[in-house]
Amino acid sequence: MPSAGDPPVTRKLNFSSGPATLPEVVLRRAQAALWDLDGSGIGILEHSHRGPTFAAVLARTTALIREVAGIGDDFAILFITAGASHHFTMVPQNFLGESETAEVCHTGVWSGKAMAEAQRFGKVHVACTGAPAFDATPEAASWSASPRYVYYTSNETVYGTQWAAPPASPPAPLVCDASSDIFSRPLPLADHGLIFAGAQKNLGPSGITLVIARKDFLATRRPGLPPLADYMTYLDQGSMYNTPNTFGIYMIGEIVAWIRDEGGLAAIGERNARKAAVLYDFLDHSACWRAHARPGSRSNMNVTFRGASPGLEATLLARAEAQGLSGLAGHRAVGGLRASIYNAFPEDGVRRLVQLLDEVEREGH
Amino acid sequence: MPSAGDPPVTRKLNFSSGPATLPEVVLRRAQAALWDLDGSGIGILEHSHRGPTFAAVLARTTALIREVAGIGDDFAILFITAGASHHFTMVPQNFLGESETAEVCHTGVWSGKAMAEAQRFGKVHVACTGAPAFDATPEAASWSASPRYVYYTSNETVYGTQWAAPPASPPAPLVCDASSDIFSRPLPLADHGLIFAGAQKNLGPSGITLVIARKDFLATRRPGLPPLADYMTYLDQGSMYNTPNTFGIYMIGEIVAWIRDEGGLAAIGERNARKAAVLYDFLDHSACWRAHARPGSRSNMNVTFRGASPGLEATLLARAEAQGLSGLAGHRAVGGLRASIYNAFPEDGVRRLVQLLDEVEREGH
Repeated sequence: MPSAGDPPVTRKLNFSSGPATLPEVVLRRAQAALWDLDGSGIGILEHSHRGPTFAAVLARTTALIREVAGIGDDFAILFITAGASHHFTMVPQNFLGESETAEVCHTGVWSGKAMAEAQRFGKVHVACTGAPAFDATPEAASWSASPRYVYYTSNETVYGTQWAAPPASPPAPLVCDASSDIFSRPLPLADHGLIFAGAQKNLGPSGITLVIARKDFLATRRPGLPPLADYMTYLDQGSMYNTPNTFGIYMIGEIVAWIRDEGGLAAIGERNARKAAVLYDFLDHSACWRAHARPGSRSNMNVTFRGASPGLEATLLARAEAQGLSGLAGHRAVGGLRASIYNAFPEDGVRRLVQLLDEVEREGH
Repeated sequence: MPSAGDPPVTRKLNFSSGPATLPEVVLRRAQAALWDLDGSGIGILEHSHRGPTFAAVLARTTALIREVAGIGDDFAILFITAGASHHFTMVPQNFLGESETAEVCHTGVWSGKAMAEAQRFGKVHVACTGAPAFDATPEAASWSASPRYVYYTSNETVYGTQWAAPPASPPAPLVCDASSDIFSRPLPLADHGLIFAGAQKNLGPSGITLVIARKDFLATRRPGLPPLADYMTYLDQGSMYNTPNTFGIYMIGEIVAWIRDEGGLAAIGERNARKAAVLYDFLDHSACWRAHARPGSRSNMNVTFRGASPGLEATLLARAEAQGLSGLAGHRAVGGLRASIYNAFPEDGVRRLVQLLDEVEREGH
């Protein structure tokens, strides 16, 4: 394990949108576990997924998720070796018949990709949209008759918007892509059939998704699917039909334990709101920086903003990199700047960014 | 990083069939990289997959694989976030039309699972089989007319058999599941269209597969597939259509670098043959232990064997666990005993197992 004799390492302030900053205390524990997991004499990467030590890891991770998010036995907790994009296909493959309609709340890049996949399997109806600016989550939805499910993206990583609450009064079970804000605040379960989230923002490493789904909703999936494309396989086999991403499951468990130790989802949610407000407040009072998203729809995870000129943005990015503030360039699809400040991103790091934005503004670049 | 001040940790001799023992020098490097990758100030789990540091990791891993296995530009190197079982479906989904035939060399559990998936998409013809004992790889094959591809499993993890050389004179491109022996010896590329391997035996952690495939074979895949089900997406997008398993790619690179430093695939292959021979030689001369697989078909990766009685096997397992020899129980489907001794498993560990087998035999249990 790292000790006082190590050369000091200055870790950067990492504003990456994902993979992203993880809690340092968890990284230290993971370092030890690579060599020897919990005194078992075998590292986490090397443990058989069929052995008792990993079985305990899987059980503990599942129990922690239930405890921290208040999830009862009517919901299944599944771990799927895939990125969130895989579920753009898997959701309609499981739930959408050719003549059925997926109702979509369209808020940007990610719901757009999910729609394209749903169209392979059935019909898509856009109930509400934030197009073309995607600077707010839509207020009113126009539902079609008898949709199969209602799909939405709880946080739009690219545009920096976030639903303050899930779409109200949905006419069918909600399916939520929660990749970029899961466990950043209390998890709303009411009305939901299925929630999926890539782990690489608030939960752990990339290469694994967490699925939280009503068991009775899963049971309505279409029959005859290949086993790994069928959500029911993961429920029936306890996410162990084949070798799962064992390290990913371990890391999710450690991070959810950290969330619990930090006070749980309500406390984390308050901290995230406070942290984001520091930056939004500055942007709202600045003459040369402005937030992209509108109040009421603003993401506490990804703060997107623009400078008064491209030159100003370039100056900011160069100065930031030089000071160890990394990953502030906006998504390649939209440009501008983006500060991703997930659960583990330190509040002090946001203050340092504000200070730098202020400096660049005062210098009148 | 671990230092002299750490409490000593006795790591077990881990005979697990996968996830499995990894090289200790790689584990030490990975521990450091979790905190700070190559002086970047950001850990490997936290680096954006779109940033220059991870781009260098991906490029380095790909180049090392090409160098160590002697793979030219006519082949693509792909990283897919999934286990090998996913390819049981993905291969026929990409390559098998309804009226086309997948030719299968059937050697046990894994080719059986792959056949079941191929039958969803087209026809299956068993060219040769080791059933019902599965104690040898078949010698002669009876090919059907114009198959689409010829499928085989280079090493049968459960039964402990391994093809000494790929099926000869195949009438179509070979597709190989090399999950449990990839990079354990020189990689045969001739006649192959596609090779896939889950990483969790010789390459790294679970949750990622390496695919080595002829580009002109990939181009014959069926059109119109969902992007993440289409092998061409991974070729066209450099395995970066969506966020890949970044830690898995890093680990594969570190392990392939270790293989290079150990002398490359030929040297590793000789060492593996020598290591396995120690155990097979003992079994062949024992009165109460015997190898399952027949000479000529024996796996250098998974040595399967039986005791003269179930009681003897139970005694061995209990004594082994007490001495820190872990994971020797056979696969749940076939029972008996199995010593998985992949690249990173130490030769001395095999000698300790032989010593224990000998002790139990002499004590006349």
